[in-house]
Amino acid sequence: MANAIFVLNGPNLNLLGTREPEVYGTETLEDLHARCDRKAHALGFVVDFRQSNTEGELVNWIQEARTDASGLIVNAGAFTHTSIAMLDALLACPVPIVEVHLSNIFTREPFRHRSYISQAAKGVICGFGGLGYELAIEALVAAISRAKAG
Amino acid sequence: MANAIFVLNGPNLNLLGTREPEVYGTETLEDLHARCDRKAHALGFVVDFRQSNTEGELVNWIQEARTDASGLIVNAGAFTHTSIAMLDALLACPVPIVEVHLSNIFTREPFRHRSYISQAAKGVICGFGGLGYELAIEALVAAISRAKAG
Amino acid sequence: MANAIFVLNGPNLNLLGTREPEVYGTETLEDLHARCDRKAHALGFVVDFRQSNTEGELVNWIQEARTDASGLIVNAGAFTHTSIAMLDALLACPVPIVEVHLSNIFTREPFRHRSYISQAAKGVICGFGGLGYELAIEALVAAISRAKAG
Amino acid sequence: MANAIFVLNGPNLNLLGTREPEVYGTETLEDLHARCDRKAHALGFVVDFRQSNTEGELVNWIQEARTDASGLIVNAGAFTHTSIAMLDALLACPVPIVEVHLSNIFTREPFRHRSYISQAAKGVICGFGGLGYELAIEALVAAISRAKAG
Amino acid sequence: MANAIFVLNGPNLNLLGTREPEVYGTETLEDLHARCDRKAHALGFVVDFRQSNTEGELVNWIQEARTDASGLIVNAGAFTHTSIAMLDALLACPVPIVEVHLSNIFTREPFRHRSYISQAAKGVICGFGGLGYELAIEALVAAISRAKAG
Amino acid sequence: MANAIFVLNGPNLNLLGTREPEVYGTETLEDLHARCDRKAHALGFVVDFRQSNTEGELVNWIQEARTDASGLIVNAGAFTHTSIAMLDALLACPVPIVEVHLSNIFTREPFRHRSYISQAAKGVICGFGGLGYELAIEALVAAISRAKAG
Amino acid sequence: MANAIFVLNGPNLNLLGTREPEVYGTETLEDLHARCDRKAHALGFVVDFRQSNTEGELVNWIQEARTDASGLIVNAGAFTHTSIAMLDALLACPVPIVEVHLSNIFTREPFRHRSYISQAAKGVICGFGGLGYELAIEALVAAISRAKAG
Amino acid sequence: MANAIFVLNGPNLNLLGTREPEVYGTETLEDLHARCDRKAHALGFVVDFRQSNTEGELVNWIQEARTDASGLIVNAGAFTHTSIAMLDALLACPVPIVEVHLSNIFTREPFRHRSYISQAAKGVICGFGGLGYELAIEALVAAISRAKAG
Amino acid sequence: MANAIFVLNGPNLNLLGTREPEVYGTETLEDLHARCDRKAHALGFVVDFRQSNTEGELVNWIQEARTDASGLIVNAGAFTHTSIAMLDALLACPVPIVEVHLSNIFTREPFRHRSYISQAAKGVICGFGGLGYELAIEALVAAISRAKAG
Amino acid sequence: MANAIFVLNGPNLNLLGTREPEVYGTETLEDLHARCDRKAHALGFVVDFRQSNTEGELVNWIQEARTDASGLIVNAGAFTHTSIAMLDALLACPVPIVEVHLSNIFTREPFRHRSYISQAAKGVICGFGGLGYELAIEALVAAISRAKAG
Amino acid sequence: MANAIFVLNGPNLNLLGTREPEVYGTETLEDLHARCDRKAHALGFVVDFRQSNTEGELVNWIQEARTDASGLIVNAGAFTHTSIAMLDALLACPVPIVEVHLSNIFTREPFRHRSYISQAAKGVICGFGGLGYELAIEALVAAISRAKAG
Amino acid sequence: MANAIFVLNGPNLNLLGTREPEVYGTETLEDLHARCDRKAHALGFVVDFRQSNTEGELVNWIQEARTDASGLIVNAGAFTHTSIAMLDALLACPVPIVEVHLSNIFTREPFRHRSYISQAAKGVICGFGGLGYELAIEALVAAISRAKAG
Repeated sequence: MANAIFVLNGPNLNLLGTREPEVYGTETLEDLHARCDRKAHALGFVVDFRQSNTEGELVNWIQEARTDASGLIVNAGAFTHTSIAMLDALLACPVPIVEVHLSNIFTREPFRHRSYISQAAKGVICGFGGLGYELAIEALVAAISRAKAG
Repeated sequence: MANAIFVLNGPNLNLLGTREPEVYGTETLEDLHARCDRKAHALGFVVDFRQSNTEGELVNWIQEARTDASGLIVNAGAFTHTSIAMLDALLACPVPIVEVHLSNIFTREPFRHRSYISQAAKGVICGFGGLGYELAIEALVAAISRAKAG
Repeated sequence: MANAIFVLNGPNLNLLGTREPEVYGTETLEDLHARCDRKAHALGFVVDFRQSNTEGELVNWIQEARTDASGLIVNAGAFTHTSIAMLDALLACPVPIVEVHLSNIFTREPFRHRSYISQAAKGVICGFGGLGYELAIEALVAAISRAKAG
Repeated sequence: MANAIFVLNGPNLNLLGTREPEVYGTETLEDLHARCDRKAHALGFVVDFRQSNTEGELVNWIQEARTDASGLIVNAGAFTHTSIAMLDALLACPVPIVEVHLSNIFTREPFRHRSYISQAAKGVICGFGGLGYELAIEALVAAISRAKAG
Repeated sequence: MANAIFVLNGPNLNLLGTREPEVYGTETLEDLHARCDRKAHALGFVVDFRQSNTEGELVNWIQEARTDASGLIVNAGAFTHTSIAMLDALLACPVPIVEVHLSNIFTREPFRHRSYISQAAKGVICGFGGLGYELAIEALVAAISRAKAG
Repeated sequence: MANAIFVLNGPNLNLLGTREPEVYGTETLEDLHARCDRKAHALGFVVDFRQSNTEGELVNWIQEARTDASGLIVNAGAFTHTSIAMLDALLACPVPIVEVHLSNIFTREPFRHRSYISQAAKGVICGFGGLGYELAIEALVAAISRAKAG
Repeated sequence: MANAIFVLNGPNLNLLGTREPEVYGTETLEDLHARCDRKAHALGFVVDFRQSNTEGELVNWIQEARTDASGLIVNAGAFTHTSIAMLDALLACPVPIVEVHLSNIFTREPFRHRSYISQAAKGVICGFGGLGYELAIEALVAAISRAKAG
Repeated sequence: MANAIFVLNGPNLNLLGTREPEVYGTETLEDLHARCDRKAHALGFVVDFRQSNTEGELVNWIQEARTDASGLIVNAGAFTHTSIAMLDALLACPVPIVEVHLSNIFTREPFRHRSYISQAAKGVICGFGGLGYELAIEALVAAISRAKAG
Repeated sequence: MANAIFVLNGPNLNLLGTREPEVYGTETLEDLHARCDRKAHALGFVVDFRQSNTEGELVNWIQEARTDASGLIVNAGAFTHTSIAMLDALLACPVPIVEVHLSNIFTREPFRHRSYISQAAKGVICGFGGLGYELAIEALVAAISRAKAG
Repeated sequence: MANAIFVLNGPNLNLLGTREPEVYGTETLEDLHARCDRKAHALGFVVDFRQSNTEGELVNWIQEARTDASGLIVNAGAFTHTSIAMLDALLACPVPIVEVHLSNIFTREPFRHRSYISQAAKGVICGFGGLGYELAIEALVAAISRAKAG
Repeated sequence: MANAIFVLNGPNLNLLGTREPEVYGTETLEDLHARCDRKAHALGFVVDFRQSNTEGELVNWIQEARTDASGLIVNAGAFTHTSIAMLDALLACPVPIVEVHLSNIFTREPFRHRSYISQAAKGVICGFGGLGYELAIEALVAAISRAKAG
Repeated sequence: MANAIFVLNGPNLNLLGTREPEVYGTETLEDLHARCDRKAHALGFVVDFRQSNTEGELVNWIQEARTDASGLIVNAGAFTHTSIAMLDALLACPVPIVEVHLSNIFTREPFRHRSYISQAAKGVICGFGGLGYELAIEALVAAISRAKAG
């Protein structure tokens, strides 16, 4: 759909609100979903919000986004640091992509500093908890507009 | 269940007994299952013994263990060395965790020396074949008791 | 001032709009200043927008922000990757800090992948050009509110 | 089956022909399938041609090949560089294995230079697009014959 | 002696119970000795339990074990990470060897992640405090039996 | 010559058949020459088959190929891993290039994993012994045709 | 001046007493100045005590010290780890140099372990807070005497 | 000015002639200035010769050169190895740039082997003392002519 | 003893005065002992001054200091760079510890730059020859006082 | 000969003018030869200009230069980065040596950044195409004069 | 004694003849002693042949050699790779030193490739079993003669 | 010939006696040749003594040694550190091989510490100048005898 935004969430993000709240905050994934819906709606877009613990399913969804979305927000969770398969799917995706993380990954363990997703993303937003998703939608919509205009 | 122990086995462990017996021994996964049942039963616990070749399924099971198990034994196989997703699920798991390997991974290829699982485990047992699973149950039950007591 | 936001820009950002537009876009620093003014004003804040090519001057300004600002946005330019002095000043700064970059630094040369600034920032926004500054103000104001509330 | 060859394709290869044609060429996966059928048939073999975006499924198929195939061709795509699980499955596979890549992975990003698959393969063919699959079948059949003879 | 087990403890383990109890627990070395005696006795073995702060003395004891012990448990303490001399002595030791650590060394400083002892050990048990010694005896006795049988 | 293929062999390949047969097989260089002649002839090409132990001579031959060959097959032997001079000559060579190795270099010593030749080759074939040369000719002829067509 | 000692302080040391007191203590820079005055006076020397956040100014002062000081104490703060320019100025300085740090830099982040200043200093004193400055003056005066004598 | 050449000298070069003469020679900066004047004049150019110990000032001057110079010679001294800010300013400078060093930096300490300046320079001249400046002017003027011609 | 200071010297320090005087000076270990006695006495403390070439003996002495000393000065000589056993003993030692070296270890071979001792020391003094021991006593006594006070 | 200058060119430089002109320019080796002749003649020297693709021949020529040349210019091409043999020959050569490269090797692939030749050269000139050879002669003649004078 | 040669053997060499004979051969340490006696006697020297498993004892003996030996042969065994203390003692030893190893340490595990002993030795002999000791004595005596002569 | 020993010398060894005598001594290659002749003759062997600056020629000679020599002494000079081609030739050589170096390569530049030759040699002798060749012959003859006997 021309005005659909896919918001794809990686492994363990279904635990949000219960898992390590000092790192990830107390918002649940449903809260994030609601935030995204509200924000996207205000900007004339519809959100397709999904979560999976399986890399292959996330790859499938990114491939789906090639035709069914006008933009893509990805919080790949732990796959951020290990999934070249997701990177390849994103590189094959012609629509704008924004990478988002709830926590500031650069102040955590060294193995969380490298992101394969960044190689295919227009930009990165991290450290702002649930608000980051809203900012990502704002940035994504701007990129979609510019792409249409350009 | 208060007295359930999850024993989660990673990729290719379903091949046990046939695959590289000089590395992994001749016991089958069923043999290991029986060993675990016996040992746990003797200590007043029930074992839920599973195997999967898919990282996402293992992540799901670890998440399940958060509420349904009082302790967790993980032989992540090859995912030991690559799965930050499993590490994150384990970090979100409030019950004691014991890591086990059939072979001594430190005498094998360098890429098998690093374990993400260890970061979330109480301890590690490796190199003792099927007996290692029994020792792991023993260590896990002690940790569960101490956790209850503490 | 309780409602002042410092927006500090590092070396060569005064060249914006003329320097490598394929990397940094065509907006000038004045354009960015205007964007920030508008956005901050709408959220009830005043922006103090500065640029310097000298590390020591930027350190001075960050120290000034300790008492004169309620939040700090930093685009340290090239100093992002080399200035432990700025990091130390930021670590001594009790107000929320947001790091921003016009380009996606993670798709550029390897020496631009490491940020000392990130160690002291609440979060990072990069790759969205001038819009990134607006998103940073939005994120910063939210952090200021939360800090006041908390 | 004694004369079956498994041709296993990893993540994103289902996008062939549309994704980055300057890297991967314009042939589709169906074209590759047809090429393999033709070539194998001419040599007295039948091809079982599969693709998956999920590592676990590929591991399952490799395990299946242990009894149902007389040889194995693997283009693991992005998993080439990250999947120790596939390596372990291949190491447990008693039939000859040939690794194939459409592009010359050694002229691409450094993280694409390391292959876990190579550790279990008889040989590697890369850089020749769809033709590489035909050469791989040729090489595989020769290896199967030699294995039977030896 | 055919049924003697050497339990060798490296530097600073004589401080157990007083030194960094949050890392090493509150059991003393005498407590560990008693645990080992009990466990070994139950399995028909006698324990020779020693501790030294001097690498050379530990090397001497390992050499002694070549003729006087039917198995060896080693907690080399800090020498785990630095003593090639102990590794060489262990490699020259024809009886089974089990490595044990009270803490999970893989969650501590990076210089504690490498073990020279592992290269010569049948297996490793770490992270379970004093219980680990009992598990080690159990594993060692199993290995001794198998060695006799095999 | 428009239909000439240069097949250049590097140091020690003259020893084939006698040197480490468990690594390199029992075929002699003459056998390989014959294989290449047969294969090339069947495809309408003539092979110019050479071997040298001297890097400079191989550089000269590659330079010669710029005008006298329509394609180039290179088994640089040990120079594969050390010769930037051969790489530079190949980069200056306008005709298609295929790299071939008798053994699977990726399962050998680490210093044999890096190939300078790959940087200039269309593709790589390794691990198939003498058959690899035939596959290389097949791949090269296809590349020559495509180059002519394109 | 023949009996002048320059005490040069790098970036953020003007914040002393307020910034991260658990790392740097509660003494202010003025306190340090007073300590140095007292100590130097007792030994027959006069202190010229300065602080700057700008690398270039510190380089200027070190150059000044070449003629105007009989010895130099340097706490380069964050520039310790990044300033080859200060190192070069110090290498050109014929009078004795003592490096001082308030905290023990070797127990902090890895990027604080390397000191360029050490390459040009007679010795290093770190970890003793303000007292370290007094010890540095004591050591410097001894070095000045020895230099005069020698 | 169309025929102006900026010659920018980094930290500590004002000490030339007195500092480590065995490394940098006995010529003073004034001598170098005179050399440059003479050489430039002979080629129809005017030299603007400057030195600073402050990175920010050097960045300012490079920015100035964008409009006021037809070419740029840079001896960044210690900043050669640390200043990404100068690199960025140079990358934004549309006129030809030549990097010069008095000593052969490649025979000195390893931290002097990497130059950020080289990334933006047409070429590098090092090791020839003051003569190197003259050669640099010669090379720069040739590059300016070619740029005008091309 | 409440007012005893242990001064522990590592391998080869018994050779002082004869060994490499250009590195270590001409003072003998007895001279150092006398210096320490004088200095400690002036501050109301008694020195227990020892030297050993055996790591285990030094570990024993550090353990002894846990109860018999009110502070500890350690010049571990070559063990500085290799002895995790000494580090562990020091970490178990509740009294203040000062590390001292006669030479500036940071201007020597790279393998002398890393100190395990620093991880457990309050601070480090190096490069001032025998005077460094006096400064260390001064610093240690201050730390002892503060510890008593705090 | 007392006034002879050897100009030695390494592998593939005979292709100049035809090979990758965007990197190496359009001048041929003969053009470079003519440039050198002219320049040297003007300064009272004679050029002996040679090229070889064989490392051994270049080593021979450098050895020859020990007695037959008063100075040496070396463009070692690809051998720059690999030939310790040439370095050793140059180190044994008592006359001044200047290293020259047509392109700026520091903006090319990482494996072209290290030069063994630099270790034995008085200085380096790179990035100025054929003009670099003239500058090298100028620098070399100055060095020869100074050597005679000194 | 003017004509005494110390032959010092490190840890586990007392096991010679029984330990890993495929690596170290079947000669015992007594056999080596006899070989050395014979050889030294023939050259007019007396051998003082010792072995220890304790680093400190070996350091003591090296110190003893400073006055009591005219030359030193060291087979430090495992300490070769870890003992900076032995290196320091050897550096303080004014007589010639020869390093010897029974096996070719460069074909063994990577951690056996680095030798601290080599830094202080005149030369190294490895790989020749017991004969290596005789060659070492021959080389040492030559060095002693030259030292006396020189 | 059954009693021929090849002594192969690599690049620049023809300069012996004149080149860097402080490193390589004053003996000429002829002197070494004479030493070898004498020594070999005394042991009933004939020496074939050669030197080349060309890697390919050395490879040829090693290949020749496969049939014409009963043992091989190699001083590969600079090729020691770079020539995998020589290593491969040596690996294909069925007779014993001894590596020799005049200087102690382990006290020189780091790039001289790695030897490819060692991988194929029975043992290594370095640091003893010309005497090392005699020792090498002695060791080689012993190895030849043992090979015949075994």
